[in-house]
Amino acid sequence: MARKIIIDTDPGQDDAVAILTALASPELELLGLSVVAGNVPLPLTTANALRVADLAGRPDLPVHAGCDRPLLEDLHTSEVVHGDSGLDGSELPPPSRAATPGHAVDWLVATLAAAPERSVTLCPIAPQTNLALAIRRAPEILRAVDRIVMMGGSAFYGGNASPAAEFNIFVDPHAAAIVFGAGVPITMIGLDCTHKALMPRWWLDDLVALGTAVGRTVAGMMDFNERYDRWRYGSEAGPLHDPCVIAYLLAPDLFGGKDCHVAIETGSPLTRGMTVVDWWGKTGLPANAHVVTEVDSDRLFRLLHERLARYG
Amino acid sequence: MARKIIIDTDPGQDDAVAILTALASPELELLGLSVVAGNVPLPLTTANALRVADLAGRPDLPVHAGCDRPLLEDLHTSEVVHGDSGLDGSELPPPSRAATPGHAVDWLVATLAAAPERSVTLCPIAPQTNLALAIRRAPEILRAVDRIVMMGGSAFYGGNASPAAEFNIFVDPHAAAIVFGAGVPITMIGLDCTHKALMPRWWLDDLVALGTAVGRTVAGMMDFNERYDRWRYGSEAGPLHDPCVIAYLLAPDLFGGKDCHVAIETGSPLTRGMTVVDWWGKTGLPANAHVVTEVDSDRLFRLLHERLARYG
Amino acid sequence: MARKIIIDTDPGQDDAVAILTALASPELELLGLSVVAGNVPLPLTTANALRVADLAGRPDLPVHAGCDRPLLEDLHTSEVVHGDSGLDGSELPPPSRAATPGHAVDWLVATLAAAPERSVTLCPIAPQTNLALAIRRAPEILRAVDRIVMMGGSAFYGGNASPAAEFNIFVDPHAAAIVFGAGVPITMIGLDCTHKALMPRWWLDDLVALGTAVGRTVAGMMDFNERYDRWRYGSEAGPLHDPCVIAYLLAPDLFGGKDCHVAIETGSPLTRGMTVVDWWGKTGLPANAHVVTEVDSDRLFRLLHERLARYG
Amino acid sequence: MARKIIIDTDPGQDDAVAILTALASPELELLGLSVVAGNVPLPLTTANALRVADLAGRPDLPVHAGCDRPLLEDLHTSEVVHGDSGLDGSELPPPSRAATPGHAVDWLVATLAAAPERSVTLCPIAPQTNLALAIRRAPEILRAVDRIVMMGGSAFYGGNASPAAEFNIFVDPHAAAIVFGAGVPITMIGLDCTHKALMPRWWLDDLVALGTAVGRTVAGMMDFNERYDRWRYGSEAGPLHDPCVIAYLLAPDLFGGKDCHVAIETGSPLTRGMTVVDWWGKTGLPANAHVVTEVDSDRLFRLLHERLARYG
Repeated sequence: MARKIIIDTDPGQDDAVAILTALASPELELLGLSVVAGNVPLPLTTANALRVADLAGRPDLPVHAGCDRPLLEDLHTSEVVHGDSGLDGSELPPPSRAATPGHAVDWLVATLAAAPERSVTLCPIAPQTNLALAIRRAPEILRAVDRIVMMGGSAFYGGNASPAAEFNIFVDPHAAAIVFGAGVPITMIGLDCTHKALMPRWWLDDLVALGTAVGRTVAGMMDFNERYDRWRYGSEAGPLHDPCVIAYLLAPDLFGGKDCHVAIETGSPLTRGMTVVDWWGKTGLPANAHVVTEVDSDRLFRLLHERLARYG
Repeated sequence: MARKIIIDTDPGQDDAVAILTALASPELELLGLSVVAGNVPLPLTTANALRVADLAGRPDLPVHAGCDRPLLEDLHTSEVVHGDSGLDGSELPPPSRAATPGHAVDWLVATLAAAPERSVTLCPIAPQTNLALAIRRAPEILRAVDRIVMMGGSAFYGGNASPAAEFNIFVDPHAAAIVFGAGVPITMIGLDCTHKALMPRWWLDDLVALGTAVGRTVAGMMDFNERYDRWRYGSEAGPLHDPCVIAYLLAPDLFGGKDCHVAIETGSPLTRGMTVVDWWGKTGLPANAHVVTEVDSDRLFRLLHERLARYG
Repeated sequence: MARKIIIDTDPGQDDAVAILTALASPELELLGLSVVAGNVPLPLTTANALRVADLAGRPDLPVHAGCDRPLLEDLHTSEVVHGDSGLDGSELPPPSRAATPGHAVDWLVATLAAAPERSVTLCPIAPQTNLALAIRRAPEILRAVDRIVMMGGSAFYGGNASPAAEFNIFVDPHAAAIVFGAGVPITMIGLDCTHKALMPRWWLDDLVALGTAVGRTVAGMMDFNERYDRWRYGSEAGPLHDPCVIAYLLAPDLFGGKDCHVAIETGSPLTRGMTVVDWWGKTGLPANAHVVTEVDSDRLFRLLHERLARYG
Repeated sequence: MARKIIIDTDPGQDDAVAILTALASPELELLGLSVVAGNVPLPLTTANALRVADLAGRPDLPVHAGCDRPLLEDLHTSEVVHGDSGLDGSELPPPSRAATPGHAVDWLVATLAAAPERSVTLCPIAPQTNLALAIRRAPEILRAVDRIVMMGGSAFYGGNASPAAEFNIFVDPHAAAIVFGAGVPITMIGLDCTHKALMPRWWLDDLVALGTAVGRTVAGMMDFNERYDRWRYGSEAGPLHDPCVIAYLLAPDLFGGKDCHVAIETGSPLTRGMTVVDWWGKTGLPANAHVVTEVDSDRLFRLLHERLARYG
């Protein structure tokens, strides 16, 4: 039986690849997308989620628009990485439809309230505002959550939104504090892992060689994405963030990590949004997350290629 | 035409008096109560709200249970002030009914979404978790809000939950930060005002002398409440907090204050939940609240007596 | 026998009046002045201290220049209150001499190291950088300190440098945290007291009527000082801050207060430098300061006049 | 001409090795040791510094005791790593003498005040309390400082005193903030580097094989030190911290790093003492430190052996 998942997302090129990978994987049943402001503002992330569903041939996929800003912080977006549209580098047409009626938080609450115990995996690959609101609005829904497998944070790598903080957690640290305190099993896939998932040239070339709309679109988007990393980090190849979450669901043996206590810095402007990972057990606090730091990059990209190649 | 109000509450003896006063005032149309954890845990505050509606002869009043804990902080209750039930000193029977179906946040969102522009006054007399969630879940509802008239905070008095913070804001400072940042007109009635609203002996005596259930109940509850203030502050008479909000709606000329910028401390453990009131305009930030610090106490208690005397 | 005192100062008009009052009081033996940056930068506060000693006819008084900036914060001065010179409104000539050789911190350490147990009262009426450095450099000197009687902080009044903080503590909150944590008896005379010491018109007039250089100078300086308070606070009369410390030494019965625990906010930008006074004993922490909030203003100004009138 | 250095230290086994290495290196002229509380309390660190000078045959070396506690934080020591004496694993006799008269801060001030411009390298391998006090007491001494080459902090490794902070900075974050803000060139050798300087078995064996007191003592101490790392980190070999500073002075080409802005977290309890390294230039702030993250471990240990072998 397919594993039921919900992706909470702010597309974003790498969000798009994560969604496409999930929809190409029969092991996963994607119940829908909850969309949030993050990489770009909510109207754009919502339109982008719909455009990706169209590209995947899934105009039926529930796509619910959610929160347009973080809990307390002002919205901080990242056009410098993703372009003004959030999907720069693709040439996707406008969405074929409006978002599914109903706020993403309400949809999360209703969907999880109706689901059996521990039957749904939540996959936030964006600021966690929608999830935090749903958890505080209806804590009873947590019983339906099997695990949260998220992209965000950092154990050793440092930050990409500030010296100390990864973007998804930086944008809404208070939401992340609510999620990490919720008592649900969490797998945190952060920059330590994703900066070892550097996109090889062959992967981009092979996607183009597929000759499909999906192959062309993913290659174009990720090529755009890489420009930022080349400029900022001087690296030859850019990291692939969000698809690692879907790959982890499909092949957890590609990844390595450790159970740790993770606290979120919400008090200090200097270190706001830092995931303080107690890797060495200094604090004595019990682990609340499996922190992933390693990935077999070669097998990862082969897996992603194989899935994306399934699109006609 | 009566002014439409919603009371967000955590009864609490003084919450009860506020609700009774509102229900006795034809100038106000109480649309219902949204209930939150605060003075005591949510099951008790919900039952207490229902018991007060029963006492007022309003078993039809919408009473919606809401959040059972603050956004980020652990729940901090105040049985030392309110007794284990939250309504100690009263002898009210158990509620005649269960809470109205529907979460308080959903009810707030639905009620305000259906209301005309600037047609409803929100009266939080509790930690502001419900309001904060509603605002972030559905920011468009703010257009229906005429004003928020709240009990909470302090300009000069200091705190009652900690040296720096008043209880309602201390319990959920992040919620208060969301409310004060919402861009809606706010009237903040804090400890500066309510500690000038010291319950005179004649007021309690006259309530008993009414010979009614309401008179007896209010006198009994407020007498219990006073014990804490006598012990802690050595004062002869205890302050009356929440009913000041309803009195302000009925007779704003009894009160005095100033338009100020108010910021909420969410970062420091030492000063958590402090309302940092820029009374002297030091920061140059625009006012986001009318901060009430003065009250004509004699007229206040006469007004409250007159209203509570309307109950048969 | 006269009480030995050291004044740590950043003149400042009201610092000048404090020094003049001390030097006119045989009950006090002023061992010298340690000077720090505060109201204006160190070169000016040092020159001003020397000018005041000259005015008092005490070119022999030890005047030691100390720290030119706070421990961690950037220096924040207050020319808007004190004028560019720090003594605007006076017409004092340049100092007759250079500062006494030796850094103020070294002089504090040497003087206290040589003094008998509990024989010296420290009177900081400025940011407490010099004292904090002396305490950390030579903690053994604290045994010679009878008490610290300071101008700074606030219990209920709020701040004058920010909404939450009084100037002296705001400028160097880390120094204040060291001083309040030193384990020495402290009397804190803050804005609650000094804003009840509003300079009456008769006091300024009578000083002029003395026909002396001191009378004319003090009246001129304090008249300048008042302008700020009239503009900012709309008050008819300005508060007199630093001389309250000397008056407290001469006549403690003019003042009223309470023993409390006081903590200093050093962590949050919003409330930086706040003196968190646990007036009602909420924290259970033991008192580390006598917090003065009341003054008999009429007797205060009569006392100050009588002392200043002693100058020929 | 030998490079003049001052080591600020809290021995500590690895401090001892750093001191011994410096004293065996004619390229360096060690002007003396300033001692501070850190790994163990001040009486022990002072005695240990004297014992190490004795072992090196340098009973003439100036050894000045300094601050017995951090600026604001309570003293946090690390007997779990260093043993109760701070030099557990050695069998050094008690010191042959008392510390050199004069507080370490005064000695630092006097020594630097008398030194030519940019003529002295400061080598803090301990909490930086002494240095911070000297800088604030006498900022003019900074002109004599060529560079600060320090052991402390972390760019990517995380902490060893808490999840976020390295021990030396954790113990006195406010002192570190003063040092990093002083405007002097800094080389920061933190855990990224020292956890690549893992003590090889051959190094310990070869030290024993020297058959000298120094060889035996160093091997014994470092063997004791390793036990902690084996227990905590499960590593086969323990890191060598403080001697990296001396090795850097002797052979900077063994090390690699980058010029970065480094800020010190002083506001948040969770991340207190973290060195927030802007490795990727996210903040736009100018570099204030050369952050060392790489070391040629093999050449490092051969260099150290060669120096320690010079002792007869």
